[in-house]
Formats: sequence, C-alpha cells, structure tokens
Amino acid sequence: MTWIPVPDGSPIGVHTLPYGVFSTAHDGRRVGAAIGDHIVDLAAVAGEQGGADPAIFRTSSLNAFMSRGPRVWFAVREWLTRLLMDREHRAAVEPHLVPMPDAVLHLPFEVADYVDFYASRQHAENLGQIFRPDRPELPKAWRHLPIGYHGRSGTVVPSGTDVIRPNGMRADGGAVSYGPSTMLDIEAEVGFVVAVPSALGQPIPVGRFAEHVFGVVLVNDWSARDIQAFEYVPLGPFLGKSFATSISVWVVPLAALEHARVDPPPRDPKPAEYLRDTQPWGLDITLEVSWNGTTVSRPPFAGMYWTAAQQLAHLTANGACVRTGDLYASGTVSGPIREQYGSFLELSWNGTQPVRLADGSTRTFLHDGDRVTISASAPGPGGSRVGLGEVTGTIRPALR
Amino acid sequence: MTWIPVPDGSPIGVHTLPYGVFSTAHDGRRVGAAIGDHIVDLAAVAGEQGGADPAIFRTSSLNAFMSRGPRVWFAVREWLTRLLMDREHRAAVEPHLVPMPDAVLHLPFEVADYVDFYASRQHAENLGQIFRPDRPELPKAWRHLPIGYHGRSGTVVPSGTDVIRPNGMRADGGAVSYGPSTMLDIEAEVGFVVAVPSALGQPIPVGRFAEHVFGVVLVNDWSARDIQAFEYVPLGPFLGKSFATSISVWVVPLAALEHARVDPPPRDPKPAEYLRDTQPWGLDITLEVSWNGTTVSRPPFAGMYWTAAQQLAHLTANGACVRTGDLYASGTVSGPIREQYGSFLELSWNGTQPVRLADGSTRTFLHDGDRVTISASAPGPGGSRVGLGEVTGTIRPALR
Repeated sequence: MTWIPVPDGSPIGVHTLPYGVFSTAHDGRRVGAAIGDHIVDLAAVAGEQGGADPAIFRTSSLNAFMSRGPRVWFAVREWLTRLLMDREHRAAVEPHLVPMPDAVLHLPFEVADYVDFYASRQHAENLGQIFRPDRPELPKAWRHLPIGYHGRSGTVVPSGTDVIRPNGMRADGGAVSYGPSTMLDIEAEVGFVVAVPSALGQPIPVGRFAEHVFGVVLVNDWSARDIQAFEYVPLGPFLGKSFATSISVWVVPLAALEHARVDPPPRDPKPAEYLRDTQPWGLDITLEVSWNGTTVSRPPFAGMYWTAAQQLAHLTANGACVRTGDLYASGTVSGPIREQYGSFLELSWNGTQPVRLADGSTRTFLHDGDRVTISASAPGPGGSRVGLGEVTGTIRPALR
Repeated sequence: MTWIPVPDGSPIGVHTLPYGVFSTAHDGRRVGAAIGDHIVDLAAVAGEQGGADPAIFRTSSLNAFMSRGPRVWFAVREWLTRLLMDREHRAAVEPHLVPMPDAVLHLPFEVADYVDFYASRQHAENLGQIFRPDRPELPKAWRHLPIGYHGRSGTVVPSGTDVIRPNGMRADGGAVSYGPSTMLDIEAEVGFVVAVPSALGQPIPVGRFAEHVFGVVLVNDWSARDIQAFEYVPLGPFLGKSFATSISVWVVPLAALEHARVDPPPRDPKPAEYLRDTQPWGLDITLEVSWNGTTVSRPPFAGMYWTAAQQLAHLTANGACVRTGDLYASGTVSGPIREQYGSFLELSWNGTQPVRLADGSTRTFLHDGDRVTISASAPGPGGSRVGLGEVTGTIRPALR
C-alpha cells in the first residue's frame, strides 16, 4: 500500500508508475511519474533525496533517462516504489506531488525514427476482404515476416492535440481532385519506445528486446483512407498517414507489464531463425476505443501474430541501427469479432455498416468535431489492473 | 578571383562555397566552408573577424546555422565571399584554412525526417517495363502527384562509410529464406535539406521553397532489390532500403545553383493547383556514377518530372510540418538512354545485360569490395562549373 491516496480502482497505482514530461504554471518541462491523480516531480525528489541522478529528470524528454539502460530503469523504479510505500518518506515527498489538473503533459520523448507495423492477422484479413474480395488472401510476405514501413516522426503529437482534417488528392471514379479527406479514420495501436541504441550493422536478437525497449504508449495512427488509397502504389502510405500520429503522454515501463505477458498465437509457417521467440512477449493488453463517448470497440492485443520482440529483431535484421527515442507501433489491433476491430474502416466495413453512437447518431468515418479516445489496461499483480492511460484527439475542419 | 589558390578546373570555387562539418587532429567538430583543396574554419574566422555569429559554427551540425533562415544564409555567403576575394583579408583568414587531407568530414546535419521520392519518369517507366512487361504503365497516381515514402533517418551516413551487405528474407521461386542480398544496388539521387521549419497544419506553397530549403547533397539510396521485392506489398520499401543511405559531406547552398535553374519538362495532366510551378525549379545538374573507377552512367537531373519545390509543397499539403534537418531525396535520376540510368537494376536490365568495367570484369549487381562514387556538377556563372562533390561507399561482406 502506498501512502498516497489512490482513487478506488485507479489503474495508475504503485505497480504502474508510468513516466512522462510535464510543466506547471511555475516551472518548465521536467520528468515525472504518475500515481493515482498525482505526478511525482522526480527532478525535485531526486535532488533532495538522492537515490537517482536528478540530471536525467531535469530535462524536457525521457530520452536521457531511457538511454541509461535497464539497470538504471530498475533502480529508479525500486527507489520510487520505496519512497511511495514507506510512510517515513511521506513528509519529504509530499511537497513534490503535483495534482494532475495543475500540470500540462507534453510529448514524453523526442521521437527519432517512427515505424508502423501491420501485425494483427485479423486486421490484415479484414482489409483483404474489404479491398480484394475476389482474392482476400494475406500479402505474400505477411506470415514470413512482420511487414512494416517508416512513418513521419515529426508529426507524432501528444494526446489531446487537435487533428486537422487533411487535404489531399483522391480519386472518385475516374476524377482525381484535391480536397478534404472524406474517409478520415483511426488505427488503435500499441507503440514501443526504444531506449538503448544499437550499432549500425549489428542486428538485435529477439531475446534482447527488453535490453533495448523501455516501455509502451498507446498510438492512434490517424489515417485518411481516400488519400492513402490513391497514393500508396507502389511505395506505401505517405500523406494518408503523415499529417498526425497521436501517442499517450505516459510511457508505461515494460517492468509494469510482467503480469501481462502471454504466449503469442501459433505461427505457420515456423518463423525464420532470427524471428523465433525465446521468451513469451505476447502482452494481454485490452484496448478500448471511445467515439464521442461511446465505446465502439475493445481490441485485444494478446492475439497479435508478431510480437514487439520479433518486430525489433526484424527492424534491425538488415543491420539498421536503432536510436534512443525510436518508436515502433504494432499496427492496428483487431480481434476476431466486430466489437474488437481497431479501425472505423473495419467497424463500418468500408462505410457500408454505420456505427451507432449513444446519442443516436451514426457514423462511418470521422466527422469534424468528433473526439476519439483510445485507452487500455493489462493484468497487474494480485488481480489488479495496470493502466496504459489514454490517447485522445478531436477532429478540426480542413483548411480552405 | 579569390586569393586562395584553387586548382585549375576545380568545381569548388568561390561561386560554390558548400558547407560541412569537419574535425582535425587538434580540434573537434565544427562548421566549415570548402574552397578548392581547403576548408575555411568558419567558427575561428567569425570569432576573430566578426561579420557572422560564431555560435552557429561552433557546433557539430549545420542545423543551427540553417535554422536561422535565408537572410542569415545570404549574409554569411556575402561575408565569406568578401573575405575570400579581398586580398586585405588574406593575412587574417589564412591561418584558419585547413588543408582537406588534414580534416575528417562528418555527417553535415542532424537528419530529422527522411523522405525519398520517385520523380524520374524514365526510372518509373523502366521499372514498369522490367517488372510488369505485360502492363508497363506508370502507377495510377504517378502523373498526378510526386509519389514518395518515408525512409530511415537514423541510417543516413556520410560519404565514405562502408556499407555492409544486408541480410534479409528473399523469395527464390517458392522458397523463402533469410540470407545476404544477392541483388545489392544503388540509386543515384539528389537530396534537398530543409532548414526552416513549418507549423503543423500549415502547408508550404510551391513558391516558398527557397524560404525553407537550404541546399542540396548527393544521395546514394542503397537498395537490396531481392529483399525489397519480397517485402514491399502493400506498405512499401522497408528493410530493402533502411540498412544505409549515403549522402555527400558538403551541402551546396541553393544560392550556388542559380545558374543551373531550368524549366521543368511539360506535365500532362496539368498539376493540381497546389503543385503548380510559380518559378522554374528544374536544376541542370549532371550526375556521374563510377563503379570501381569506371564511369557507367551520367544521369541528367534537369529532366526530372517533379521539382523539389513541388515535392516540398506535396510533402506538406496534408498539413504535415517540416523540421530543420529534414532531408528529402529526388528518387533515382534516370535519363532516356542506358548511359543515363541511375540504378544498376536499370543498367543491367534486372541482371540480364551485364555492365563491363574498365578492368574487363562484368557486373550486374554489387560484389563485395565494390566501390561506387556518385559525383555531380552544374552550370555556374560565366561558363564555370559548380561542383556538388561526391558520395562514395564500399561494400563489405554480410555478417554471418
């Protein structure tokens, strides 16, 4: 039990302790940890109490802390847990607790390279059925390797940032025109944050995942389906995705997800040696997608075909290096039934099956003013839940 | 005339003045300008002479200088030209000239996002004929917009960096296996370096290109064709490209290319309004590709269908912002005849027409130990040439 009053059922308890970057009216950006409705000002506490190097927290991103590696991550988590559990530290720590409403949360890390995968078999199969009903099979490489592509790291934005409906080139029958996307969509994903860099030419074995990856964020990979459909042959998605990618502001360390680890689903064919699991890195995270307040889907992450450990091994299998701040997302998380689909393209089956919201209105793709919130949680110790926070965004009208 | 002895025919004269980052045995990384066989140590000269803020040169990348914007770029170029032209400055500047052989050149800027376009019609048509001989037409969007995709900025390396042959998954008939690429290729391209950032949601009009772009580098977009062919459907190139992208170490400012500006070729259909030229930003740059010392191609950049000004407008048309250090490359530069093709895939027509080198050996794709150098020049004032330097790299064997 922690001495901080954590609201009943809060998934941000002492077993979660995610990290983020916040500022207050009186002080600039610095690193904090969340517990219940409060933020622990780590720079201030470390400066006074010792136990951790305050320099890694007196900065506007998690990059410095993350780059120190697993030994420092575990030591800080242990130190912080002790401070929050032992009443003797209350008097010293309490002055450095910032109520959540007093803080502004920022992008938690400087994004180096951003990669997006495509690892949900159900999602890939749904897209095959929607776009190629005559030959809905998976892309030929899909079961051999985790298909992915690079996205735009400069447009990764923190949860709460409004998203302006993008303009772009679309084909309507034979007519090609430039204008606001009419098929603006979401993709509910889980993102992995790389902390410890690797050297050019040195692949990261699948078993070394946890030595390089610090934690997870929730990702909304906003997608303009009409722009994407017109542009994507042969080089993949570009402007249909690059206008904004939203991430949650709290990075949940892998250490908080130990109880969420599960075996990934069986793979056929057997993966190549560099992709073979050495430890179970499936994660039993349940996402929830809320559209203007109505829960429209609960995508299950546990069923993802390729794990984050395999994705990191694949990403570097050709000798590409990773850097502190690299972000790679899982791809849309979709389960086998409609109530588990992670995109509106799938939920509305390409606009043919509208989704009904609590206010009685219906939707296929996003309207201006719509707000989408993706939240998630995972099993913690002793039947508790570990919260992954949320990523939210509201659609603003296209520029004229 | 400059008082610095510039070797006869050197394309790095006083009209070129490219910028780079160098270090010497005695001093760390800093910004310099090249002229002939020398580097002007700008931090030292500005510190002593004034006329420019030395802080923007006392740093390990061009990002600070570039982010200051066109007024500073022009003022520095004018100041530097004056110092190098007027003999009265010789005594003061000469102590800060570093002979090229005494310097190590580094990556000249911190790469933010890296985008690669596909703007040579000849190249796109060649690929259509090689891979889809039954339907060799251009991709449907090709003549409507500059097709592009994001690449990996963390593996952009400076000229001279060895390139390790990548391992990856390839399909040989029905058999899929992991191993060294057997179709390692180059792509000769011209890269544009973004200096002045834009705001999220604010497209950059085609006419504002020169307010945001600082200069150009040469790019070798190393490509493993077998890995790329297996992975690229439906999300585009990934590991087939991400193992290394080499760039020249000297950034040639746009100001040095004024005499190279030409009208781009006619476009049909007429581009959408946001892509319409307001000024001629075709560039009459001639590239030269040398394979183990044999010149195998001279790709002409002037014929590129989409200009860099249009590419920047397209890149931001959906509201995506750019940052200081963004790099976008033109795509492979190929002219209409074989001696102008910018990739070995085209030169060897997918391996069916070997290329003969000066030593009598033949090649289709790259062997271990092969060295490729791409150089380029463009018209300068009064019949002179402006050199774009070179980008070179040697292939090392794949890791086992």
